[in-house]
Amino acid sequence: MHSIPLFSLDPHAPPRTAVRKPILALRHAAACAQPDWLAVEEPLEIRVQGPNQDMVRVAVTMRTPGHDPELAVGFLYAEGPIRSGADLLDIDADRPGQTMHPCNVVTVRLAHAFDPAVLQRHFYATSSCGICGKASLEQIAVHCAPVAPGPVVPRSVLADLPTALRSAQPIFEQTGGLHAAGLFDVTGRLILLREDVGRHNAVDKLVGQMVLTGAVPLAAQLLLVSGRTSFEIMQKAAMAQVPIVCGVSAPSSLAVEVAQQFGMTLVGFLRQQGCNIYTHPERIALEGSQRQEEP
Amino acid sequence: MHSIPLFSLDPHAPPRTAVRKPILALRHAAACAQPDWLAVEEPLEIRVQGPNQDMVRVAVTMRTPGHDPELAVGFLYAEGPIRSGADLLDIDADRPGQTMHPCNVVTVRLAHAFDPAVLQRHFYATSSCGICGKASLEQIAVHCAPVAPGPVVPRSVLADLPTALRSAQPIFEQTGGLHAAGLFDVTGRLILLREDVGRHNAVDKLVGQMVLTGAVPLAAQLLLVSGRTSFEIMQKAAMAQVPIVCGVSAPSSLAVEVAQQFGMTLVGFLRQQGCNIYTHPERIALEGSQRQEEP
Repeated sequence: MHSIPLFSLDPHAPPRTAVRKPILALRHAAACAQPDWLAVEEPLEIRVQGPNQDMVRVAVTMRTPGHDPELAVGFLYAEGPIRSGADLLDIDADRPGQTMHPCNVVTVRLAHAFDPAVLQRHFYATSSCGICGKASLEQIAVHCAPVAPGPVVPRSVLADLPTALRSAQPIFEQTGGLHAAGLFDVTGRLILLREDVGRHNAVDKLVGQMVLTGAVPLAAQLLLVSGRTSFEIMQKAAMAQVPIVCGVSAPSSLAVEVAQQFGMTLVGFLRQQGCNIYTHPERIALEGSQRQEEP
Repeated sequence: MHSIPLFSLDPHAPPRTAVRKPILALRHAAACAQPDWLAVEEPLEIRVQGPNQDMVRVAVTMRTPGHDPELAVGFLYAEGPIRSGADLLDIDADRPGQTMHPCNVVTVRLAHAFDPAVLQRHFYATSSCGICGKASLEQIAVHCAPVAPGPVVPRSVLADLPTALRSAQPIFEQTGGLHAAGLFDVTGRLILLREDVGRHNAVDKLVGQMVLTGAVPLAAQLLLVSGRTSFEIMQKAAMAQVPIVCGVSAPSSLAVEVAQQFGMTLVGFLRQQGCNIYTHPERIALEGSQRQEEP
């Protein structure tokens, strides 16, 4: 049997988002040994501690290093223990020049008492997958307020979002292997972009940053995620009160159900030339589009 | 506050892989209200019970209904408690005409004693994400034997795999929203295909089926997954001793690391006209390709 430590505990190692490896590239008749860039995937352990309490290990997620404090804050915001920046005392994470904290660990210290049983009741030894750590079906439900009405966004603004997201994705261009989450205002201006091997981590990093700057709820913004939209993405968006969520690819049935019930506009297959609106189309101004009905 | 049960406990409901919903389709100047198919995403709870033991809830995963017993068996095979079909006493799951078992729950009864502490030590209240349920970094390592050498596959066989996979994907064609895992023999013949909203679930369903038919280890087969390859996919493939793993898109750094260390051939960006070979290229016969070296 073989047992391999797949991570570094060296606190001096700098965070890496992409790494170069030798590959053999087959292209038509050629076979070429060359270096290639890979998106880095490493585990991150999230620890939480209340005043005068023991530290609790609440989750390990596979993520791309970088923006780890934001990831931890976004995760805890989606799961409940953090409602705003005022709930935070401090955050310990890997930082350049800081050598006392272990690598790939974030410790979030809360200003108030932390009851791990609350987290574990909903999520068990929670996972960043949003759902899969939950240990029984009865516990799967979204607990948050419905999203407020408005804003209304012209469809022409939607059409330009994927290009704006992709052109702002530095690591994707390098590796072809990263998901992205982008937060936009109603004019289509990119406010914040985060990338990660996990789509849910990219959303957590983005929401966490907004929590840290006091900018939640995100009630006047649009969220665009690369790829598909699933339950967990919609659950995180609902907790942050995002009114319009767009995906470049298909949503799942449960994503649509969450959007419908929480009053969120869900857009899928978003491209320059069109998209599908699955729920609450009243937030998208059709600007004289020809309306047709098909049975 | 709003709390919604997002699943059905009605044991009479048939399993659904796709569902039709009304959408508003924007295409160029037109806006058309029409029905559309969505890939179904629902939670599945996996329960395990040893002889004369209490039932233990080990995981909840978001999956597309169908092949639930295979999913549970594949999951438990990747996590350790099941080494072969001989470890299984019986499996209770939703089946047409069966009304005594709750929906979205699979109960696996083992022929031997089950120690939940073993599972929880590695994975905590485990998740199908393979890694994110693990509660501490120290526990993240792959525990299995290195994969045996061979077989050697001509590159022309690789080139045809994505087309074979896509043309056998009935639900993807309908919804555009499902991942797939395909198992092929060395001549490129598709042995088994499974689809799911989660790539890891598709792999679990596939491996689980092979466990139930006594066909593991998969030492003479190729695995192709849609999209990216991550740590968890490689961990499941390593447990099943798959020698060649291909992805249609990019691998992560950790996927490459697992493949390297466990002696597996990892292929990425697999297309008709070429691919990248990340590790152990000795299993791919280059058939007179012009070999070039690039610094």
